[in-house]
Amino acid sequence: MDHHHDDKHTVVIIGYGGMGSYHAKLIKDNGRLQVIGTYDIDHARGKASEQDGYRAYESYEAVLNDAAAEIVLIATPNDVHKDLALHAFAAGKHVICEKPVTMSVEDFEAMTAAADQANKVVMVHQNRRWDEDYLIIKQMYEQKTIGDLFRIESRVHGANGIPGDWRHLDAHGGGMLLDWGVHLLDQLIFMIDSKIISVSSTLSFILGDEVDDGFEAMLQFENGVSALVEVGTTNFITLPRWYVKGTEGTGVIEDWSMTGRIVTRNRDAEIVEPKPVQAGVGLTKTMAPPSEMATLTGALPKPYAQRSSFYDNFAAVIEGADEAIVRNDEVLRVLNLIEAIFRSGRTGETVKDFDLYK
Amino acid sequence: MDHHHDDKHTVVIIGYGGMGSYHAKLIKDNGRLQVIGTYDIDHARGKASEQDGYRAYESYEAVLNDAAAEIVLIATPNDVHKDLALHAFAAGKHVICEKPVTMSVEDFEAMTAAADQANKVVMVHQNRRWDEDYLIIKQMYEQKTIGDLFRIESRVHGANGIPGDWRHLDAHGGGMLLDWGVHLLDQLIFMIDSKIISVSSTLSFILGDEVDDGFEAMLQFENGVSALVEVGTTNFITLPRWYVKGTEGTGVIEDWSMTGRIVTRNRDAEIVEPKPVQAGVGLTKTMAPPSEMATLTGALPKPYAQRSSFYDNFAAVIEGADEAIVRNDEVLRVLNLIEAIFRSGRTGETVKDFDLYK
Repeated sequence: MDHHHDDKHTVVIIGYGGMGSYHAKLIKDNGRLQVIGTYDIDHARGKASEQDGYRAYESYEAVLNDAAAEIVLIATPNDVHKDLALHAFAAGKHVICEKPVTMSVEDFEAMTAAADQANKVVMVHQNRRWDEDYLIIKQMYEQKTIGDLFRIESRVHGANGIPGDWRHLDAHGGGMLLDWGVHLLDQLIFMIDSKIISVSSTLSFILGDEVDDGFEAMLQFENGVSALVEVGTTNFITLPRWYVKGTEGTGVIEDWSMTGRIVTRNRDAEIVEPKPVQAGVGLTKTMAPPSEMATLTGALPKPYAQRSSFYDNFAAVIEGADEAIVRNDEVLRVLNLIEAIFRSGRTGETVKDFDLYK
Repeated sequence: MDHHHDDKHTVVIIGYGGMGSYHAKLIKDNGRLQVIGTYDIDHARGKASEQDGYRAYESYEAVLNDAAAEIVLIATPNDVHKDLALHAFAAGKHVICEKPVTMSVEDFEAMTAAADQANKVVMVHQNRRWDEDYLIIKQMYEQKTIGDLFRIESRVHGANGIPGDWRHLDAHGGGMLLDWGVHLLDQLIFMIDSKIISVSSTLSFILGDEVDDGFEAMLQFENGVSALVEVGTTNFITLPRWYVKGTEGTGVIEDWSMTGRIVTRNRDAEIVEPKPVQAGVGLTKTMAPPSEMATLTGALPKPYAQRSSFYDNFAAVIEGADEAIVRNDEVLRVLNLIEAIFRSGRTGETVKDFDLYK
């Protein structure tokens, strides 16, 4: 098919909840895609869709049978992504799928195999590859703004527990590792071009849900980088979103407001032996602050930009005009990493020799 | 022997460097101990001692042969603690020893066996059990100020690398795990009365020293508490000294100035579902700040007080009037934990079934 740029690709959103309606709003301003309708098993959401100006299909079958629908955007609970996608490919539709795309490596392999067989595109909405905070860190990693980054700590902290309904339930793919973890791990894998040699993790079940209400994972990469990834929903005080150490300094991004700074060694300053300071009942020279001359404090670099938006990229991919920014082999690697983190958390053992890095 | 309170116990300090001279200053104000001299293999330090008003013994033998010397205080590099202590016991002296008391469990077992045989006291200067920041956290743990603490993060961050001379060298027991690590781990073990079921750690060698320039360790206790202990000497921006999570809130102590706060759930407030906030290119309800009404921010509690100072307690112990605040079975447990952390860091494996908890 040959598409002109003013000929928008048509999208039907499956699952018109928080994320589904958010997609509709974003696509409204997009030049390459347009939403022509929605389908939700909850009739109330169908009504909401109509009030928002989008036709509510009466069934998923009706969506699949509508030749005018080119793309199915799946924004349902996680456990039904795979079946919805397989039906979409069989009906000749492309698929945009919310994250986590599936709850296992095996299911995603089945999904991509079906897409390939139908010669259709599936692209996962790993939208946090476009987050400004992340792009700043990615740029610092690539451009060695504070030397070689050897330590990356990526955290999101909330105090609201697990939100909503199905995210509490194991059968629907709930829990924080699958919800926020998939973003933070995807960001790391898209940044660090090296094999993960080991992962050690703990899962939190302090809220009494059947799914994890948070986790932390320590990752060791073959190139020497170590990373700590943490998601918490019981944190009434937050630690910084990003804390990174390079061979020449340290960087911090506090939160999504982009408050942050970098502090680097001042190579021009004379080296002054630090003076011991009182620390508790003891003295410390090791932990004394460096002299004022010894370091330089600066602003975060301006963020790196992705070559196009998620939706523009998707449109270009189905036209055969560009490569996907979110590649399926990367998505598969993240799902496999998540399985390793669950395994480590459940057994209390370090997991090695698992990474699908090529 | 029967000692009156105005009859001070006599101390000779072995190793008149940074810590040795610091002890001399502190003991000057103490009512139960007095420094009657020092010995250092470096003659320049002997001169410094005399200028400070303390007799410089010409040899360790001379100290041991001096019947007026009741206590030997060892503040030398770590590798000679054991031999100095064994000679002291043989000469009928009590011993105060700097931390880490020895570089292995085996050596400390030999040291305590020799003390027992000579019927003398050895007590390790784990002075950071008296740190105000630590005592606040210990009190919060015991009194459940923010509910049951289930997560404890204890960090010290500096940017000066490894200080001084012998601390760079493996043979002298250098490195940050033995230097600062021993304090942070000792504090945890003195606070949490539960067996450690697993430890997973990484050691940092980024500065190119033969010893670790920092480490992190994830500890799981049998009672459900998880702890992260981290020492860094390449951190140009510091994370908080303490970050703790309880079932009712979160506490933070930023640094040794005791800046900090606790934020707790407001049980009296109506529960309001948090509103999604923009975070990067996405929305999040999970990580939205709780409504202003939903939490209460308060000051840190006033610190807990130890029942006596280190030196007063030592005097009482040698008089048979009190139990040691720093117990040797605890010190042994910490040394054994340090060995497990080295093992985990070197192999990249989680270490289990090692803790000497009784």
